[in-house]
Order: sequence, then structure tokens, then C-alpha cells
Amino acid sequence: MSEVTAIIAGSGALPALLARRLEADGRPFVMAALEGFDPDEAEHWRVERFVIERLALLFERLEDLGVTRVVFAGAVRRPALDPELIDPKTAAQVLPRLLPAFQRGDDALLREVIALFEDAGFSVAAAAEIDPGLVPSAGILTQARPSEADRADAERAAAVVDALGAVDLGQGAVVAQGQCLAVETLPGTAAMLDWVAHEAGQFRPDPAGARGVLLKAPKPGQELRVDMPVIGPDTVRAAAAAGLAGIVIEAGGVMLLDRGATIAAADDAGLFIWVREP
Amino acid sequence: MSEVTAIIAGSGALPALLARRLEADGRPFVMAALEGFDPDEAEHWRVERFVIERLALLFERLEDLGVTRVVFAGAVRRPALDPELIDPKTAAQVLPRLLPAFQRGDDALLREVIALFEDAGFSVAAAAEIDPGLVPSAGILTQARPSEADRADAERAAAVVDALGAVDLGQGAVVAQGQCLAVETLPGTAAMLDWVAHEAGQFRPDPAGARGVLLKAPKPGQELRVDMPVIGPDTVRAAAAAGLAGIVIEAGGVMLLDRGATIAAADDAGLFIWVREP
Repeated sequence: MSEVTAIIAGSGALPALLARRLEADGRPFVMAALEGFDPDEAEHWRVERFVIERLALLFERLEDLGVTRVVFAGAVRRPALDPELIDPKTAAQVLPRLLPAFQRGDDALLREVIALFEDAGFSVAAAAEIDPGLVPSAGILTQARPSEADRADAERAAAVVDALGAVDLGQGAVVAQGQCLAVETLPGTAAMLDWVAHEAGQFRPDPAGARGVLLKAPKPGQELRVDMPVIGPDTVRAAAAAGLAGIVIEAGGVMLLDRGATIAAADDAGLFIWVREP
Repeated sequence: MSEVTAIIAGSGALPALLARRLEADGRPFVMAALEGFDPDEAEHWRVERFVIERLALLFERLEDLGVTRVVFAGAVRRPALDPELIDPKTAAQVLPRLLPAFQRGDDALLREVIALFEDAGFSVAAAAEIDPGLVPSAGILTQARPSEADRADAERAAAVVDALGAVDLGQGAVVAQGQCLAVETLPGTAAMLDWVAHEAGQFRPDPAGARGVLLKAPKPGQELRVDMPVIGPDTVRAAAAAGLAGIVIEAGGVMLLDRGATIAAADDAGLFIWVREP
């Protein structure tokens, strides 16, 4: 009997990509989306909606549907909890573990969510186990290639992101001509690139010099099964708007959403995408 | 005979503050400003203009004026060098030391500039030696006081800035409710606060929760004689516009420009200024 997979979905393109892949492979699946977050193309599949306040009931529902494996896909923000929605089972079994984790930061919260699903009897798969093509291995994916200056900027960006990892920050930085223009914080990659486009970019030491790179990498100890950094066509367009020469992602640690469209967008814009060994 | 001090001036309020202090103390001084950077109130003093390309000639001029001590004051950016301006002495004695330092980053460059002045026979004083009141010691300077949440945000911000110091970045971060909203990069504190005001601030996890803090601290090993982080009335106004609860500066490591006006601006806006032991 084939394993039934539940895609635990937030917003964005990843849930649909995984659904299509499972469909193409002829593997049964269900999609369950956190209330308030809309996966792209959700209209194509029946979507089980769930709320954190009734997470124990989701576990029961997935079990009824024969689900044995879950995969987390798509972006979510920490939801606010509505006490009126909480069911007794979630109150007794889930929230006593979840609420303390809420105080300990995003990583702790994700780890506890994973542990809750595992303790409810589900295995937790990484998206890359469903579709290995999502996480590219080392190489240059585009027609454009990084220059020596771009490689030096990538080294510097990697050092910055490494240092930020020690304080549970990071995943991204923009460096041009050896100077760090921006560091990814809570608002995320798109907000950082927008800031480079409109404000920070003018601080490049030599306006005619190297345009700089966006580097994305996971944090040390990041739970890559449920929280892998991601780039996609939108990232490429934002990096182009920020005037960057290219994007550097850590091999094995960053997901390339919609590989074909992402590489095409980079080739159109003349940007490189370099998958770099850490 | 009283020592003659040269204020080596960039832009901003500090050169004039030091000039007034030296005047008040009845100590002779001259002001020398890097071409392209205008110290506030420069019209009040005769200002010797100089360019990096003729730095050796500045040394001679200062010696002629009886200068034995220099103090660096005010903000400069790395200037571009115009080869046509270079005089033979600077070409032979100064640039062979300065140009390699240009490649090694801001700290290396500053250290070499200091060494050049010292080797030319001048002692290099910190601004705080001229006016000890510029660098406040630990305490809360304002009517408003940090809450427990603000203190926790300051701890987190200090950890972030410490981690950034390892990669020669930092000096500032904004943290609200334990979440890092922004990290200071090349564009500086004002640009970071502007970004929090217009973009990042909305990412505070609880819109009604703690408003967050700006923390400023020196980088480890920063050459505090010539490059001490600074806050002033403009910083307070920008922090207020960003919706922050207050400003935290490291005791002994951050300069408070125009103490009276800065504290008054904070009291007007209801912000705290907390000088924190590292």
C-alpha cells in the first residue's frame, strides 16, 4: 500500500509544486493549509483547513485519511492564538508543549511542531525528499558567471551570514565591493532587496564597480526539513531591481523554487545564480 | 608653552563642539578640514583645507603652525583619489602606506592614518580627552526608563552587535520583542532607523507590544580615538520616528554629541537613553 503524504501548506508556490510532483509520481496525498495562508493554485486540490488552536483535531483527521507522512511547505508567520477556538484535546496535549516554544524563538517553535507531528505518529519528510530537484547541487546555473570581484563579495557575504548564525539571525546578506550593504532580518529577503534597490545601493563605494551579490544560506542548526531558505523567480527579479550581479546560494541548503522559471528570469536579467559549496 | 591642537575635521557637529571647548579652556587650536566635508559652523574659525593626495603637505603646514597634537572629529567617507593632485612627498612617503590600507577595510585605513600622523610627530588624542563629557558613563539619562521588555531587547541587540563585530560589521541594531528588525550596515544608523520607520517596524510580532530599542556599541578592537560611534539629537528624532522606546549605548564606547540637546530631544519624545555597561 502506498504511503499517503500530507502537504502541510502555508502560502507561496511550494505546496503546489510538491502536489504536482506527487501527482506525477502517482503517489496519494492530501493538502492541509493553515488558516489565513493561501498556497498558490489551492483551487486545484481539496484543501483541509486547520488552525493551531485545534491542531490535535488535524492529527485525527490526517490519521482518518490514512496519512503516514507529512511535508511542510510554504511560508507561514507565527499566528496569534484565539483562546475561543481551542478544543480540549489541543488544550491538554498540544498547547502545553507549543506555548513555551512560542517564547523561545522561531527555531524552537518549529522543532516543537515537528516533534508534535512525530509524536502523533507521522514521519516528517523534507520537501527535497519529495522532489530532489528542489535543492540544487554546486555549480553555476546561468549563462552569466561570477567575476573575481563577485566571488570575493560572496566570500565576505558568507562570513557575515556565518557570524549572524551565532545569534540565530541571518540566512541572507548583500555585499558589494567588499562592503556589506544589507543583512537579512525579520522582514525577510524581499524587504532587504527592496531597501538595497531604493536606499542602500547608492552606498556602493565605486558606482562603476562590482554590483554586488545576494547570498542566501541556512543558519547553523536550522531545521532544513521544515525551514529551508528559498529563492525563486521573484528573488531574481528583486535582485535585478537592486542592481546586483547575481545570487549565491549554499549547495544543499537552499531551495530553488520553480527551477526553470528562476533560471530563465536570471538569464533574462543577465544575473548569475551560483550554487556554492559552503 | 601651551600645546597647539589641530582638529582634523570631517562633517557634522563634533569639530565645532571641540573647538568651543578648547576655546573655553583657553587652549590654542587650528581646524583642518578634509576637502569635500563641511564641519558645522566652519565659518566661525579659520579652516585649513586639505586633501589626502597632499597629506604630506598638511603635516608640514601643521608643524609650521606649532601643532603637536591632533584630534580626529566628524564624519568622512573614503574619498576617491585624484592622481593629478598628488604631490611628490605624499607620493613617496604617504601613499605607499595608505593605498594598501585602502584595500583592507575601514579599520585598517584608520589605523594607518593614525600611524602616519604619529610618525609625522603628532600625538593623536581622542575627542573625549578634549571633552570628557562627550562619553557618558553608565546610567539612565532621561526621564523615561527602560522596561523589563526593553532590557531584554537590549540584551538581544547587544548579542547581535557582538556577533557582527566578528566580521567587522555592526555598531548598531534595532530589536523589538526579541526580534531583530534591522542591523546597521554601510548606510549607517540614520538609514537603518528610516527603514525601521517605513518598512521594518510593521514586522513587530505584537503591534501593541514593546516598541523596541536601538543599541549602539563599538566594534571589538575599534579604534576609538578616531572612530567612536556617536548619537545626537538627530539620532533621537530618528529613533522616535521609528517608534522605538529608547536608545541604549555602551558605556565608555559611544559618544553623546551635544548632551543637553540630545537628552532634551529624548525627554520631549518620551524616549529613554540608557548608557549600559557592556
